[in-house]
Amino acid sequence: MSNWKELGAAKRDSVNALIPKAWLLLTPLPPPAEQRDVTGKFIQQFLTPREIEITETDAVGIVKNTTTGTWKAREVAEAFCHRAALAHQMVHCLHEIFFAEAINDAQLLDEYYAQHGKPIGPLHGLPVSLKDQFHVRNVETTMGYIGWIGTFEGKKGTGKEKVFESEMVVELRNLGAVLYCKTSVPHTLMAGETINNIIGYTWNPKNRNLACGGSSGGEGALIGLKGSPVGFGTDIGGSIRIPAAFNGLYGIRPSSGRLPYEGMANSMDGQNSILSVVGPLATSVGALKLVMKGLLSQQPWLHDPLVSEIPWRDEKEQEILDIVKAGGGGQLVFAIMPDDGTVRPQPPVKRAIDIVVKLIEKLGHKTMEWKPPSHSRCNELVFKIWTMDGGEDVHAALGLAGEPMCAPVAASYGVKKEQCTASQISALNVLKRQYQKEYMEYWNRTASHTGTGRPVDAIIAPLAPFAAARPGMYDYYGMTTWVNLLDYSTTVLPVTFVDKNIDVVSPEYKPLSAIDEKIQKAYDPEVYDGAHVAVQVVGRRFQEERILAITEILGDALGKHVV
Amino acid sequence: MSNWKELGAAKRDSVNALIPKAWLLLTPLPPPAEQRDVTGKFIQQFLTPREIEITETDAVGIVKNTTTGTWKAREVAEAFCHRAALAHQMVHCLHEIFFAEAINDAQLLDEYYAQHGKPIGPLHGLPVSLKDQFHVRNVETTMGYIGWIGTFEGKKGTGKEKVFESEMVVELRNLGAVLYCKTSVPHTLMAGETINNIIGYTWNPKNRNLACGGSSGGEGALIGLKGSPVGFGTDIGGSIRIPAAFNGLYGIRPSSGRLPYEGMANSMDGQNSILSVVGPLATSVGALKLVMKGLLSQQPWLHDPLVSEIPWRDEKEQEILDIVKAGGGGQLVFAIMPDDGTVRPQPPVKRAIDIVVKLIEKLGHKTMEWKPPSHSRCNELVFKIWTMDGGEDVHAALGLAGEPMCAPVAASYGVKKEQCTASQISALNVLKRQYQKEYMEYWNRTASHTGTGRPVDAIIAPLAPFAAARPGMYDYYGMTTWVNLLDYSTTVLPVTFVDKNIDVVSPEYKPLSAIDEKIQKAYDPEVYDGAHVAVQVVGRRFQEERILAITEILGDALGKHVV
Repeated sequence: MSNWKELGAAKRDSVNALIPKAWLLLTPLPPPAEQRDVTGKFIQQFLTPREIEITETDAVGIVKNTTTGTWKAREVAEAFCHRAALAHQMVHCLHEIFFAEAINDAQLLDEYYAQHGKPIGPLHGLPVSLKDQFHVRNVETTMGYIGWIGTFEGKKGTGKEKVFESEMVVELRNLGAVLYCKTSVPHTLMAGETINNIIGYTWNPKNRNLACGGSSGGEGALIGLKGSPVGFGTDIGGSIRIPAAFNGLYGIRPSSGRLPYEGMANSMDGQNSILSVVGPLATSVGALKLVMKGLLSQQPWLHDPLVSEIPWRDEKEQEILDIVKAGGGGQLVFAIMPDDGTVRPQPPVKRAIDIVVKLIEKLGHKTMEWKPPSHSRCNELVFKIWTMDGGEDVHAALGLAGEPMCAPVAASYGVKKEQCTASQISALNVLKRQYQKEYMEYWNRTASHTGTGRPVDAIIAPLAPFAAARPGMYDYYGMTTWVNLLDYSTTVLPVTFVDKNIDVVSPEYKPLSAIDEKIQKAYDPEVYDGAHVAVQVVGRRFQEERILAITEILGDALGKHVV
Repeated sequence: MSNWKELGAAKRDSVNALIPKAWLLLTPLPPPAEQRDVTGKFIQQFLTPREIEITETDAVGIVKNTTTGTWKAREVAEAFCHRAALAHQMVHCLHEIFFAEAINDAQLLDEYYAQHGKPIGPLHGLPVSLKDQFHVRNVETTMGYIGWIGTFEGKKGTGKEKVFESEMVVELRNLGAVLYCKTSVPHTLMAGETINNIIGYTWNPKNRNLACGGSSGGEGALIGLKGSPVGFGTDIGGSIRIPAAFNGLYGIRPSSGRLPYEGMANSMDGQNSILSVVGPLATSVGALKLVMKGLLSQQPWLHDPLVSEIPWRDEKEQEILDIVKAGGGGQLVFAIMPDDGTVRPQPPVKRAIDIVVKLIEKLGHKTMEWKPPSHSRCNELVFKIWTMDGGEDVHAALGLAGEPMCAPVAASYGVKKEQCTASQISALNVLKRQYQKEYMEYWNRTASHTGTGRPVDAIIAPLAPFAAARPGMYDYYGMTTWVNLLDYSTTVLPVTFVDKNIDVVSPEYKPLSAIDEKIQKAYDPEVYDGAHVAVQVVGRRFQEERILAITEILGDALGKHVV
């Protein structure tokens, strides 16, 4: 069991070997000090103008072309496979490569179109990347665990290896999507950085001093490099929102039970006090809507016992559009939560919040304060729920190959603890429900202060104290985790970039807490310069349509409809 | 702590003392051997013709009169209070009496109507009874535990005692319902008979040799005696369906997250692998629809974190009506499950299934076989989930007063066991989800056999092996519990009555299993004669509107629209 290094290297090499020779980088990448940002012009130099045109079109634009026969699915697939191959060589964002299958699938779609004169579905020819929790035929799912290589979720001889497909994979294929790669994760999934003993560390392509985020970090980095127009991640504590934000993307953490998680690999599977949810990251809000609407048209509640029967509701989106139209462009009400009482965001994130507040006011919407039930109480509960099994599951998975736990995970799971009993878990569930009820009624009561008769339409809040984490320094998750306990539908709105000349440290800063002090000290304008900065837009449970509409309004006004 | 008997007697006496003297029975009830059935003519002798008219009108008929000013809410309330008082004296079905408050509330509703010329809401003046898990101001919630007397869920000095109201109570009041009594339960709620150390045993009013069912047994007995037109129970293993069936009522176990459970007392609160759900029992399907539609109009998802945002969907009901209309009255497809592979129903229940099958065919609908994934595998999981805490919660609650556990509960919880760990609970949750998925796909696959293009519309199955349990002989719960694991929307359809001349034992009967043999031996035509017999109609998750429409069609055809 001590050959984990060799097994990891062999797996890594076998995946890299699937990159066509023509797509290999011929010279090593310059170091970050010389080439901090590998997005945009840097990666474009390896692509043809046509490939750039295709890969820099958002998902809505792509399907507009592929569902009308204007673009061939095969050409689109090849362009994204090429760009994904480049992205992987730059930042290590892929776990599995199946370009050949993808190009073949795309060819079949083109043949279908030629024969029937119509697309196979609304996602006809759209390349979609998947976090390495999805099972896809012909390739493995390792989730970054060396012990999972050659197995099905760590078990051998199940008959499911390289055959079984997750429910959403089936649905994406039904809709005409082209699947071509699976993206990197931190082993255990319980970290905001992406690192494991197979692919190493996935870097932030916009600023290679920084983390790409996690746990859907490979998705963030890949889409950030436009190696994918839209991909799916999962979120139990921020794992969709963090990489979306760190890579300048839109993303949505839907409420649990909205999209199908059925048949995906997971950590601590069966822990059902706070459920991990699946959702998309993309370069436009339109892309998020496109894939969600498509998936819901498949009636996933007939194939996933945990999905609630809530079809896509155009009327919920329309409610927001009607309010804005009636108000001459304005009159939504936003609660602003600049910090969570324990940690304040670093200067760039503070500035992003300020930018959004000014934008909201400029558009004629309203802002108000948000003084909710204690977030630190909430986040204590989240951490207790995450560690109910005392680390049993993740230690067992790492133990399969005797491999070491990466540092970002070790902070929470390094030392095995006693497991919670059924009574203790029930007590946590009751505390969680009570907190949810309290928060919900706080939100309800805002109806009497907004002046619109409605409660607050959305909360604007930081989703991390930093633009992106510095490696090994993701020391506070509280800004994302409260959303998971409350099960709120929440999007990421990319806002701006770190500017070392504007985003400076105030020498008089007085920390809110010891952890706040640590977080503030981790900010360095020189290191962060150029990084993406985002905020989150928080809606109530199952309000995906409304919160996407609101996010699109804000993104359009920021000029970020397609980044 | 040894004075539990005195405390229980004092509580019992204090509740009985709230019955107005004019409503007390002057002579003791004749024994069951002389007066088996106390419903119908027997209870009517203590009521005026006007009281009989009011109390034998179903909820839909009542609100037709009370929301138009035809009947005064006060007169309706008084009639039901009187009849409930009689019912309680006959079968011990109440835990709390608040007739004076109810009559006062009804008076206020009449004044509102007089002043505004319109009802306060769709349930204006409708008496609604509540299982003793609902918190209602001015009265206690004991749930049958002596240790809960004078406390809030076993705790003193919470400030919530006799003040706090459950979410649904608030909503029912908003809708204009009149609350007047809380009904009996077996302590712990984990039994199909209703017995505790405060009120003793709640008997079946139709056949006093038999149990009224449980755990919403008081509801069943009270509505069975028409001391309430509609009431709410809860169901974690059959607790709505069993008392509905044993008392000849309609009832629905909605899927979890459809109706608000927020703020109710419970056993093993926080156990979230199989959730207890709340739902109505009534004398007509129309009554079930009336109260569900009313509650959903209150947007309970804004006040209960566990409710999914699924409003009442008329179009789902219409789908069923359209199918039937297009088929000239027929063409729904019913799967028939006469037994579950472990136990067969006793002769009266077998006959009820046969009656429904013939009816279905006569109406022009179709029937087909149902050979689903193993129910015994499912029911093993249910029992493991129910006892995950090893009995900790129920032993602690009974221990508060040092009172003994009743026999029907002791069968499952008598001996305290080791608690499950977090890992063990997660493993059970995974097995549960896998079973749900398997069952769901079995159901999906029926679409290729029905001939309608749709999968099976509903399953017809026994919900207990007997018409009603004989005291101390509820030896098999498997016929209700599978629905709870699958979280299916399920109604009860009252079908017929036991007839000792028809429902005879076959001497050649070959038992399916040891437990089947025990169940069959417990049947005695003489004992059972005259009892209600019902079946359950099982729909998929969140299909309440469809399954109610189907149940109404069958009930109307049986001539049981208002029993």
